[in-house]
Amino acid sequence: MNRITMTLNVDDLIKMALQEDISSEDVTTNAVMRKAKKGQADLLCKQDGIICGLEVFCRVFTLLDEDVVFDLKCKDGDEVKNGQLLGTVTGDIRVLLSGERTALNYLQRMSGIATCTHQVASLLKGTRTKLLDTRKTTPNMRIFEKYAVKVGGGYNHRYNLSDGVLLKDNHIGAAGSVTEAVRLAKEYAPFVRKIEVETENLDMVREAVDAGADIIMLDNMSVEQMQEAIRIIDGRAETECSGNITGDNISKILSLGVDYVSSGAITHSAPVLDVSLKNLHAL
Amino acid sequence: MNRITMTLNVDDLIKMALQEDISSEDVTTNAVMRKAKKGQADLLCKQDGIICGLEVFCRVFTLLDEDVVFDLKCKDGDEVKNGQLLGTVTGDIRVLLSGERTALNYLQRMSGIATCTHQVASLLKGTRTKLLDTRKTTPNMRIFEKYAVKVGGGYNHRYNLSDGVLLKDNHIGAAGSVTEAVRLAKEYAPFVRKIEVETENLDMVREAVDAGADIIMLDNMSVEQMQEAIRIIDGRAETECSGNITGDNISKILSLGVDYVSSGAITHSAPVLDVSLKNLHAL
Amino acid sequence: MNRITMTLNVDDLIKMALQEDISSEDVTTNAVMRKAKKGQADLLCKQDGIICGLEVFCRVFTLLDEDVVFDLKCKDGDEVKNGQLLGTVTGDIRVLLSGERTALNYLQRMSGIATCTHQVASLLKGTRTKLLDTRKTTPNMRIFEKYAVKVGGGYNHRYNLSDGVLLKDNHIGAAGSVTEAVRLAKEYAPFVRKIEVETENLDMVREAVDAGADIIMLDNMSVEQMQEAIRIIDGRAETECSGNITGDNISKILSLGVDYVSSGAITHSAPVLDVSLKNLHAL
Amino acid sequence: MNRITMTLNVDDLIKMALQEDISSEDVTTNAVMRKAKKGQADLLCKQDGIICGLEVFCRVFTLLDEDVVFDLKCKDGDEVKNGQLLGTVTGDIRVLLSGERTALNYLQRMSGIATCTHQVASLLKGTRTKLLDTRKTTPNMRIFEKYAVKVGGGYNHRYNLSDGVLLKDNHIGAAGSVTEAVRLAKEYAPFVRKIEVETENLDMVREAVDAGADIIMLDNMSVEQMQEAIRIIDGRAETECSGNITGDNISKILSLGVDYVSSGAITHSAPVLDVSLKNLHAL
Amino acid sequence: MNRITMTLNVDDLIKMALQEDISSEDVTTNAVMRKAKKGQADLLCKQDGIICGLEVFCRVFTLLDEDVVFDLKCKDGDEVKNGQLLGTVTGDIRVLLSGERTALNYLQRMSGIATCTHQVASLLKGTRTKLLDTRKTTPNMRIFEKYAVKVGGGYNHRYNLSDGVLLKDNHIGAAGSVTEAVRLAKEYAPFVRKIEVETENLDMVREAVDAGADIIMLDNMSVEQMQEAIRIIDGRAETECSGNITGDNISKILSLGVDYVSSGAITHSAPVLDVSLKNLHAL
Amino acid sequence: MNRITMTLNVDDLIKMALQEDISSEDVTTNAVMRKAKKGQADLLCKQDGIICGLEVFCRVFTLLDEDVVFDLKCKDGDEVKNGQLLGTVTGDIRVLLSGERTALNYLQRMSGIATCTHQVASLLKGTRTKLLDTRKTTPNMRIFEKYAVKVGGGYNHRYNLSDGVLLKDNHIGAAGSVTEAVRLAKEYAPFVRKIEVETENLDMVREAVDAGADIIMLDNMSVEQMQEAIRIIDGRAETECSGNITGDNISKILSLGVDYVSSGAITHSAPVLDVSLKNLHAL
Repeated sequence: MNRITMTLNVDDLIKMALQEDISSEDVTTNAVMRKAKKGQADLLCKQDGIICGLEVFCRVFTLLDEDVVFDLKCKDGDEVKNGQLLGTVTGDIRVLLSGERTALNYLQRMSGIATCTHQVASLLKGTRTKLLDTRKTTPNMRIFEKYAVKVGGGYNHRYNLSDGVLLKDNHIGAAGSVTEAVRLAKEYAPFVRKIEVETENLDMVREAVDAGADIIMLDNMSVEQMQEAIRIIDGRAETECSGNITGDNISKILSLGVDYVSSGAITHSAPVLDVSLKNLHAL
Repeated sequence: MNRITMTLNVDDLIKMALQEDISSEDVTTNAVMRKAKKGQADLLCKQDGIICGLEVFCRVFTLLDEDVVFDLKCKDGDEVKNGQLLGTVTGDIRVLLSGERTALNYLQRMSGIATCTHQVASLLKGTRTKLLDTRKTTPNMRIFEKYAVKVGGGYNHRYNLSDGVLLKDNHIGAAGSVTEAVRLAKEYAPFVRKIEVETENLDMVREAVDAGADIIMLDNMSVEQMQEAIRIIDGRAETECSGNITGDNISKILSLGVDYVSSGAITHSAPVLDVSLKNLHAL
Repeated sequence: MNRITMTLNVDDLIKMALQEDISSEDVTTNAVMRKAKKGQADLLCKQDGIICGLEVFCRVFTLLDEDVVFDLKCKDGDEVKNGQLLGTVTGDIRVLLSGERTALNYLQRMSGIATCTHQVASLLKGTRTKLLDTRKTTPNMRIFEKYAVKVGGGYNHRYNLSDGVLLKDNHIGAAGSVTEAVRLAKEYAPFVRKIEVETENLDMVREAVDAGADIIMLDNMSVEQMQEAIRIIDGRAETECSGNITGDNISKILSLGVDYVSSGAITHSAPVLDVSLKNLHAL
Repeated sequence: MNRITMTLNVDDLIKMALQEDISSEDVTTNAVMRKAKKGQADLLCKQDGIICGLEVFCRVFTLLDEDVVFDLKCKDGDEVKNGQLLGTVTGDIRVLLSGERTALNYLQRMSGIATCTHQVASLLKGTRTKLLDTRKTTPNMRIFEKYAVKVGGGYNHRYNLSDGVLLKDNHIGAAGSVTEAVRLAKEYAPFVRKIEVETENLDMVREAVDAGADIIMLDNMSVEQMQEAIRIIDGRAETECSGNITGDNISKILSLGVDYVSSGAITHSAPVLDVSLKNLHAL
Repeated sequence: MNRITMTLNVDDLIKMALQEDISSEDVTTNAVMRKAKKGQADLLCKQDGIICGLEVFCRVFTLLDEDVVFDLKCKDGDEVKNGQLLGTVTGDIRVLLSGERTALNYLQRMSGIATCTHQVASLLKGTRTKLLDTRKTTPNMRIFEKYAVKVGGGYNHRYNLSDGVLLKDNHIGAAGSVTEAVRLAKEYAPFVRKIEVETENLDMVREAVDAGADIIMLDNMSVEQMQEAIRIIDGRAETECSGNITGDNISKILSLGVDYVSSGAITHSAPVLDVSLKNLHAL
Repeated sequence: MNRITMTLNVDDLIKMALQEDISSEDVTTNAVMRKAKKGQADLLCKQDGIICGLEVFCRVFTLLDEDVVFDLKCKDGDEVKNGQLLGTVTGDIRVLLSGERTALNYLQRMSGIATCTHQVASLLKGTRTKLLDTRKTTPNMRIFEKYAVKVGGGYNHRYNLSDGVLLKDNHIGAAGSVTEAVRLAKEYAPFVRKIEVETENLDMVREAVDAGADIIMLDNMSVEQMQEAIRIIDGRAETECSGNITGDNISKILSLGVDYVSSGAITHSAPVLDVSLKNLHAL
C-alpha cells in the first residue's frame, strides 16, 4: 500500500478502529504510566504463512504517535515461519500497549487472507487460470482484504458495484434479454467498463458473446457444459468460472483453460495468521 | 440488537459499508432498471448453524429504502438447517440487488461467529465455566462480533480498553509490583471498574488476591498450576483461563472449576455461515 | 438519479451545501416568521436549454422538511424554453426561503452542463463518434456533473483514478515502454478494467495496439496523423480523440471515424442555465 | 488564504475532493511505479488572466505528501499571460500524478472567477461603485469562490444566510410591512448585523430608509427609478443595485453613484482559466 | 429553534452527545428490557426560573425513536416554578431511560442560562441599555447557549469570528492606527459587517468615530470616562460597555445611556436550572 | 491527559469548537494582518483556584499551527492565585488571536470544575468517603469534565451508559424484582461490569446485597435509614450516597462511613475560573 492510498483511504478506517478500542482512554495504561517511557517489542510469527499488512500495522502506531519506529525484517508477501522474528517496534511503551491489539487485528487478518489465497493460488500454478476474489469481504475491510488477495498471489475482480458491470439473471430479466442487457449497459456505463454477463446455460453464452460481452461468467455449470461454453466463446471474451474449487473438481476445471476462477472463501472464511507482539521491555 | 443501539452505534457503520460497495452508483442495476419495480427474494440457509444478524441484514435494506419489508421465519440465536427458508425480502428490486451483498456479508459473518461460539460453548455445558470473547475482533466490526458471541451462547469480556482494566506484565512492571499496580488502578479508574490481573505464576496469584483484584487471569499455566491457583484464590476473586481450549485439554480445564475461559478464535477465525438470497422475482 | 444513489452518495453533499449556506440559522427568515406557514412558488425557466438536476433540486428541500411537495411539469433531459413553468414547490414558506438558493445553485449548474453538452453532442449527430467528459469537474461536484453530461447526451469517461486505467507519458516513462506499461497495468489492475494508452505518435500507437491496449487516446495529433493512427489500429482497440473541438476542425475529426472525442469544457466552463423560483405566496 | 483558514475550513474540502478522485487507489500510477521517485513539473499558464488559488493548488499536494515543494513565480491576484511559467512543483512523481487533476481543478476555477471578476471590476474603475458577489456559488465551493472574487478586485456580499440579513418581498409580506420587518430583524438578529432591504418601488425605498435599514437594494428598477431612489435615500443608507450589468446599461448605472452592483455571473458562469502542469520529469 | 436550524445545525451535535453517553449500548436497560414497552414520565421543574431548550429536550428522544410523543404545558421563555409540571413524555420506556440524561443535560443548562440572563436583563428594564452575550460559551454548545440568551431576554453579539469584526488593541497595533484598522476592515470584510472598535481611552474613541466605526466598545473605562466617550460619540456609533455589571456600578452605567452592556458570566457561569424526569411508569 | 487520549478522543472535539468559532475565517485578524508575525502573550490567573486543562489549552493553538510554543509555569492540579503568571504562549500573532477564545473557554471551564471539585473534596478529607461525579455533564464535554473532576481530587463514576450498570427503579420494575434485575444484568452485561443498584428503602437494600450487587446506592434516605442500610450491607457491597451535600448534613453523612458521595453540581453548576491571555506583543 503506498502512502497516498494510506492517507486518503486507509487512515480514517484505522483511526475509527482505534477509537472503537479506546472510546475514552486506555484506562489500564494511563493508571500505571503517567509519563512516556521508551520501550521495544518484538513482532513474532507464530504460524507458517504469508505476511501481509505491515504498513497498516505500523500506521496504527504512528497515527497515535509519529515517533514510533520500526525495524522490519520482512515485507508484505514474504513467506514467514512459526517462531520467526518479523521485526521490532520501538517507542513510548504506552503507545505500544494502546495500539497493540488494533495493529495485530489488522496484521493477523490480512496475513490470514494472504496465506489462504496463496494456498489456493498454488493449485493453479502452471495453468493459464488465475484466482479472483469477490465482493464477499468483511464490511469496512474491503481495501485491506482486496490488497491481501493480491499480496497472496490472487487477482482482484471489480472493487465494488460502481466500478464494474456484472449482469446477473435479474438484470437480464429486467432488460428482457441478454442482448438488450448488454446494449443497455454499454449505453449507460462509463465506456471504460468491461461488461460481464453471468450465464447459466449455453444459449446464454452464445447470446452474450454475440452481444459483445467482454467477460462471461459460467455459473453452476457442469464441467462438460463449461467445456462446450469455452468452445463457443473461442477467445472472443474472457471466461470466469465461479463456484467452489475443491480437491475433487479442480483438475478438471484447470484442464478447461478457463481464464479465471473466483473464490469467496479466501476473504470470508480465512482464519487469521497468528502473529504476536512479545518481549515488550523498557529501553 | 435494539433500535437505540442500531440508531446510535450501528447505522453509521452500515452506511459506510454500503458506500464502500457503492462509491458512486450501482452501474449495472441503474443501466437496466430505470424505474422502481417491486420484487421478492428468499433468504435461504445453505449450511447448518446458528443464525445471527437478522436486524442488521434488514437494516442494510431499509437504510437504502424504508419501504422494504421482511417476513422472517426465525430470530437471532435460532438453530438453522441447510435448505431452510429463513424469510423473504420484498421491495424495489433495485434496492434488493444493490443491498444484497452488504446485507449478506454482515449476516454470514455474524452467523459464522455465533455458530462457532455455540460449538465451543456446547463443550462447557453442564459445568460452571463460561466462554468469553476477547478484543481479537475485526476492526470496525466489534459491535457486531461481540453481539454474535452473546447470541451464540458466549459471554462478553470488556468491550475495549476504556471500559475494563486488565493489568498485564508490562503494566505491573511499570507500577513496580502487582500490589502497586492494583492500587494505582483502583485510584485512577472509575470505581465501577473491576480490576483484572494477568498472572503467570502462583506468587503473582497470591499477591493479586491480597491486593484486592476482582478477576485473576491464569495465563499460560499448566493444569496443575491452575489447580493450585484456584485453591489459593478460594473464591475471593473470579478466575479466567485464557488460552486455547482443545479437545485434549478441555476436560481437565473444566474439572478445575475455573469461572471463565476466553477464546480469540471464535471471533477472529470463524468461517462464515453460508446464507444466500435466492429466487428474486418481480411481483 | 435514483434513490439509492441519492441516499448513499448525494445526500451528504447536499447537506454540506446547506450547512455552507446556513452555518447557524437563516437569520432573516427566523426573524420575521416564527411559525410555519404554507406557501407555494413557481419554478420558472428563464433561458432555453436542457433541464437537469430536478431530483437534486427537490432533495434540497426535503432534506430540510420532508413535507415539501413538488408538482413537476418536466423531467431531466427535457428541452425547456425561456418563460416555461417547470413546476411548483409547496411547503412551509420558511423552508422554501431557506433552501431556495442551494436548490437553484445545483439545478442551474447541472442544467448548464446538460445544455452545453447537448450543444456539442448535436454536432456529432449522425456520426459514429460519441462525446466524452473528463475528470475536469468542479471539486466535490463530480457525481452531479457526470450525471449532467449523460443527461445532455454525452458519455462518461472513467469516474476517477480508481476505476479506470489511463497510461500517460509519465507512466510509460516509469515503466520503460508502452508494452511494459500495459503489461504492468494488466497484472496490477482489477481485471475488469480496460487499459487506455495516451499516444503522441504513430510508433506509440503501433506499440499500444500490439500490447493489447483496449483504448488508444490520440493526443495532440494532426488530422493526418490521426487518420493514419486509425488505419493502424484497424478496429483492434477503441479510439479517443482528446483536444478541443472547434467549428474549424470538427468536420475533419468526424470524418475520421474516431470512436470518441472528449471535452473538458462541457463541465469546467459551461455557464449556468438561468432558472428561478418566483411568485412565492402564502396558501 | 491564510493557514488558519486552510486548516479549519479548507483542508477537509480538499481531502474530500481528493477522495472523490481516488476512491480506493490511483490504479494506473500504482501499477507502474511501486517506489517513490523524485520529479519536477512546470505550472504553465495557457491563457491570459488573473491567477488565483495557488495556496489551494499547493495544499492538494501537501495533503498527500508534506514533502512536496513549490517554487512559485507569482502570487494570487497577479496578471498572468499565456505561456508564462507560474512555478515548479517538486516531489514524488506518484504524488504529482495523483494530485495533478484535483489541484488544477481548483486553480483553474478560482483563476477563472478572479479573471472574470477582474474584467467586470475594471468597468467600474474610477467610479464610487463597487462590484459585489452573491450567494450564487457552486455548492461546497463558496469559500474558494468568494475568495477568488476578492482576489479579482470584487467585494463580498454576505457569506451566507446566517451572517447577513436581507429582507425580501416574502419576508416583508410575512412581517406585514417594511417597517415591521426591519423592526423584527433588529430585535432578532445579532446586533452586529446590518439590515438590508430589497425594494421594488419608491414607496418601499422611503419606508426602508425611515425604518433604519442599513442597506437598500434596488431591484428591477429602471435607471430613472434608481436615480429617484438614491435621491430619496440621500446617504442615509448604502445602496446596492442588483441585476445584470451589460455594455448597454453600465454607463447609466455608474453615473447614478450607487454604492454597489452585484453580479451572480462572476461566480456561476465564469469559464475556467487554462492552466496546466507540464514537463513532468524525473530528477 | 425552528426545524431547519435543528436539522442542519443541531441534530449532529445532539447525536454526538448521545453517542458520548452510549458508546456501544445502554447495558442496564438492554439487560432488563428486551422488548419495547410503552411508558410515560413527567417533566418536573424543581427550581424557579425560565425554561429553555424544550425542542432540544424533545429532539434527543425523537432522534432515538420518532414515535416518542410529548405533551408540553409550557414553552421556551416561560417562567416556571419549583414543583410545576412542565409536560409529559410518552414512548418506549427503553428510549425514555436511554435518552433521559442527555435530554436533561441540555434542558437544565439552557434553562440555567436563560434564567441567569433574565435576572441580569431585569436590572436593565426601563432603560435604553440592552444586555449582550459574548463568545465565552462552552465549546460545541454555542448554538444552544446563544439561543438561551435570547430566550432569557438578552441580545446576541456576533456569533463567531467569521461573522463580526471587532478590532482589539492587537489588531489596531498591527494596522498602525485605529483609522487604518477601520479602513482595512472596511476594505476586507464583507460589506454587510458592522465594524466594532475596542477603545481604552478617549483619543481612541474620537479616532474610531471619525474613522466610521459602527460600534464602539468602551473597555475598562471609569464611569466618568464612559460619560465623556458617549458625549464624544454623540449618536454617530452604537456603544457597548463590556465589563462586569455588579450591584454597585449598575445604576451608574445605566444612567450613562450606553446602548449595550455585555456579560460573559451569563453563559460561562450560570448554574443549571434543576429540572427532572419523574414518575416513569408503564402504560 | 496523555497524547493518545488527545489524538483519538479530544482533537476532533477541539477542532469542532474552533470551527464553531471560525466558520469561514477570522475576518478581523485577516483584515489587518496579511503576514505571519511572531508574538508572545502571558497566561494570567485572575482568581484563586485549581488550574486544569493546560494541555487542551495548548492543543487548541497547535492544532491551528504546530509552531506555537508554550512556557508553562504550572501543571494541571496546581493551586493558582489571582495575579499569578501561569505561562507564556509564543507564535504567529494571528494564531494567538484566532485561538485565544476557544483555548480559554476550555481552560476556564475545566479549571472551574477542578476548583469546585477541590472545594467539595476538601470537606471529605480525613474520612473514608470519596467524592464522585455523575453523568450530569455538559453535552460533548464529558471527557474534559470527568478529567477535571479527577484533577480536582474527585473520583469518576461510570463514564456513560455503556460502561457501567446502574439498576434504577424502572429497571427493577421491568425485571420484576431487585433479585431478578441483578440476575439479568449479570447474565447480560460484560462480566467486568460491577452491578450497582439504586435503593430507596431497607428492603431493597437487603435484597440487593443478597442478590450480589457490587454497589448499593442509597437514594433519598434519611441519615437514620442510611445508618441502618450500612449496618445491613456490612461491607458486602460498596455504598454510594447520592444527593446534595450541604453544610448542614455533611458531618452526619461523613460519620456514616459511606464509601462514596456523588455530586452533579461539581460538573453542571461550577462557575468558570477566570484566566486570561494578556500583554500580547510582537517579538
